Amino acid sequence: MRMYDIIAKKRDGGELSDEEIQFFINGYVSGEIPDYQVSSLLMAIYFQGMTDRETASLTMCMAKSGEMVDLSSIDGIKVDKHSTGGVGDKTTLIISPIVASLGVRVAKMSGRGLGHTGGTVDKMESIPGMQTSIDREKFFDIVRKVGVSVIGQSGNLVPADKKLYALRDVTATIESIPLIASSIMSKKIAAGSDCILLDVKTGSGAFMKTVDDSIKLAQAMVAIGEHVGRKTIALITDMDRPLGNAIGNSLEIMEVCDTLKGHGPEDLTEICIELAANMLYLAGKGDLAECKKLARRQIDNGEAFAKLKEMVAAQGGDTRVLDDSANFPQAKIAYEVLAQSEGYLYAMNTERCGISSVELGAGREKKEDSIDYSAGIMLRKKIGDYVKKGDVIAVFYTSEEGKCKEAEKIFQSAVSIRPEAPKSVPVIHARVTVNGVEKL
Amino acid sequence: MRMYDIIAKKRDGGELSDEEIQFFINGYVSGEIPDYQVSSLLMAIYFQGMTDRETASLTMCMAKSGEMVDLSSIDGIKVDKHSTGGVGDKTTLIISPIVASLGVRVAKMSGRGLGHTGGTVDKMESIPGMQTSIDREKFFDIVRKVGVSVIGQSGNLVPADKKLYALRDVTATIESIPLIASSIMSKKIAAGSDCILLDVKTGSGAFMKTVDDSIKLAQAMVAIGEHVGRKTIALITDMDRPLGNAIGNSLEIMEVCDTLKGHGPEDLTEICIELAANMLYLAGKGDLAECKKLARRQIDNGEAFAKLKEMVAAQGGDTRVLDDSANFPQAKIAYEVLAQSEGYLYAMNTERCGISSVELGAGREKKEDSIDYSAGIMLRKKIGDYVKKGDVIAVFYTSEEGKCKEAEKIFQSAVSIRPEAPKSVPVIHARVTVNGVEKL
Repeated sequence: MRMYDIIAKKRDGGELSDEEIQFFINGYVSGEIPDYQVSSLLMAIYFQGMTDRETASLTMCMAKSGEMVDLSSIDGIKVDKHSTGGVGDKTTLIISPIVASLGVRVAKMSGRGLGHTGGTVDKMESIPGMQTSIDREKFFDIVRKVGVSVIGQSGNLVPADKKLYALRDVTATIESIPLIASSIMSKKIAAGSDCILLDVKTGSGAFMKTVDDSIKLAQAMVAIGEHVGRKTIALITDMDRPLGNAIGNSLEIMEVCDTLKGHGPEDLTEICIELAANMLYLAGKGDLAECKKLARRQIDNGEAFAKLKEMVAAQGGDTRVLDDSANFPQAKIAYEVLAQSEGYLYAMNTERCGISSVELGAGREKKEDSIDYSAGIMLRKKIGDYVKKGDVIAVFYTSEEGKCKEAEKIFQSAVSIRPEAPKSVPVIHARVTVNGVEKL
Repeated sequence: MRMYDIIAKKRDGGELSDEEIQFFINGYVSGEIPDYQVSSLLMAIYFQGMTDRETASLTMCMAKSGEMVDLSSIDGIKVDKHSTGGVGDKTTLIISPIVASLGVRVAKMSGRGLGHTGGTVDKMESIPGMQTSIDREKFFDIVRKVGVSVIGQSGNLVPADKKLYALRDVTATIESIPLIASSIMSKKIAAGSDCILLDVKTGSGAFMKTVDDSIKLAQAMVAIGEHVGRKTIALITDMDRPLGNAIGNSLEIMEVCDTLKGHGPEDLTEICIELAANMLYLAGKGDLAECKKLARRQIDNGEAFAKLKEMVAAQGGDTRVLDDSANFPQAKIAYEVLAQSEGYLYAMNTERCGISSVELGAGREKKEDSIDYSAGIMLRKKIGDYVKKGDVIAVFYTSEEGKCKEAEKIFQSAVSIRPEAPKSVPVIHARVTVNGVEKL
């Protein structure tokens, strides 16, 4: 078998066999196949696409290129969840306790933030004492005892994806649905859960800018999951505005607690109920309507919040900050951002809101950057609200006053105020299962 | 400027600016841009193509990446000629003396053979004493005095093409018309002539297998030439059969002499008259009909043959082999290949005829292989001839009897004999100029 022939076959629109895909992935990971042949194959895949079978085969070859986490020593159904990333997206820390409080196991590995999007691991680390680097046995133990643990990615998981992603990033081959889908799903499959819920974000703050593209990506990922025997569902959710009101690490943990105590922002609560219900549905806890009721009940009866505290305690975190957010280290500076005209808050470029919070210290531009956990943005007005000139539309938190001006410039450029009210947009656009697409 | 953005622009169907193309070529030649980014751009070009302006710009950047031969110290119009390569193609050594005997200057650098196609330099070196490695000043002197010199490629000509071609060869990006066209034309432009005649071969022995593809390639090359101020014409000529009767180095020199003495094979003579006439036309020697008459006259009056002898003598070659082919070193073995059935010689897979001659020692499989100059094939029957079983259809010449069996197996598999006569096919399919395509 020759890599040349594999490139030429895909270039000419052919379907690669499992053996050809394995030859390419194994050869690339071992260093026998050079970058320059792989990048030309990636570009050919960009143009010619891949069938569902090819994409599933690529995903499994990548998943098997490193450690495959074996969760079989943990009883019960394990459900994983993945978000394609957004601004203010703290859903993992809300829905995992909800479903765990109903006996569904969550053994989840999360990422750190980079660029305009935040990461669950950073948010958790804003809780004093919280451990996110935990060895495999202790991680499994917490899941067995508490029912849920969320840690940072560890071990030699999917080295093929690390190498391929780094190459795609410099050869303009990121934006290919089979390549995105196999990259995400290879990690979820290697992480070992029985069922996978995908939260595909769409809009100005998301990687996929349109609902149609998001649905295509979701379909590709659901097809892979089902093809390899993992029950998989995807929700297409809105990222044309920040999710909830809080952007920034400890600010988001406060909002997680508010939501689990039953008084979170409406949009965030709605999306979390939907996501949790779909996880419960995947775990066989009833039909979707029943699962929604169950999820809501676990907020109302306080069991979900208790489960969050239990997990934080098991991972060494100080639960006093969860009971009272005043116990969090507080930012030195609070800076009010005022509306510059009167009218409806018509749109917020969500990517730019995220960049503004990075400017305040809440995120990283480069992997090596450190984070100011108390920094960030609290939105006081949301899209659709009517504002007068001078109204406070957001409050910035940071440790350095000097950062506020540049952050405000970016934030103001993200906000548009108009005389007419914006069209209302659903929080959830569609649900994609193996049976098809249900637009919501 | 970033290579990433250039790749993404081409991937999305954009037109690269001159600056972007220059950035890419200069960065690649200097080693600042890595192979893996270039190969993904090449694949994007494969799918998205290039405009005439982009292709011309790429060609000029490549041409300027190394030495540009300056022929201005040689008086008169210099006309170059390029063939895309074939089997039995010895036209350069026939048409260059024809046009030089009429005062048109030919300062030509030719290549060696590789795989099934032969090379003019190898053919010349079958003449005892013939020099093809000649320094620039002596080369220019011969052109000034004799009017024509043909040497091997020398100097640091078009290093960008060498590097790009090697990468295309292993990344399945050879078969792209703008990339083929710019590769060929960059070398012709760096070689310095005022006018360029292109002989684009088509058929089973050629790189381009169909007339339509050959016309597309010819149009791209003519557009480049005219775009950069070199008068350029292309002929699409047949390579669905070997050209003439001789395949192999000294065998082909003998056929060159026969043709210049007026008794060459009909197909070869016809194509040489056409090619020479177009070179004369490019040099402003009259309309095409007049140029054809001129070319034919120079064969009939012996002046073209005299010019060949003059050039061979100037390059140190022994002209006695030209006067009498018996003076050539002769092959030890002559082996007759017989028709295996009765009928019309219907088709000859020309690539396989070329491979058969390589097997006899007339060519190279790898660059390092040495050549047996007296080896090769003389065809005794041509497509359209009626043969009886046992008729001699070809004679093999070689120094080792053992090679004949394998060579015959390949040759017989190339030949098909059928009860019906084949359709007659023109030797020249089309003529492509800046004004359009003229089908012949």
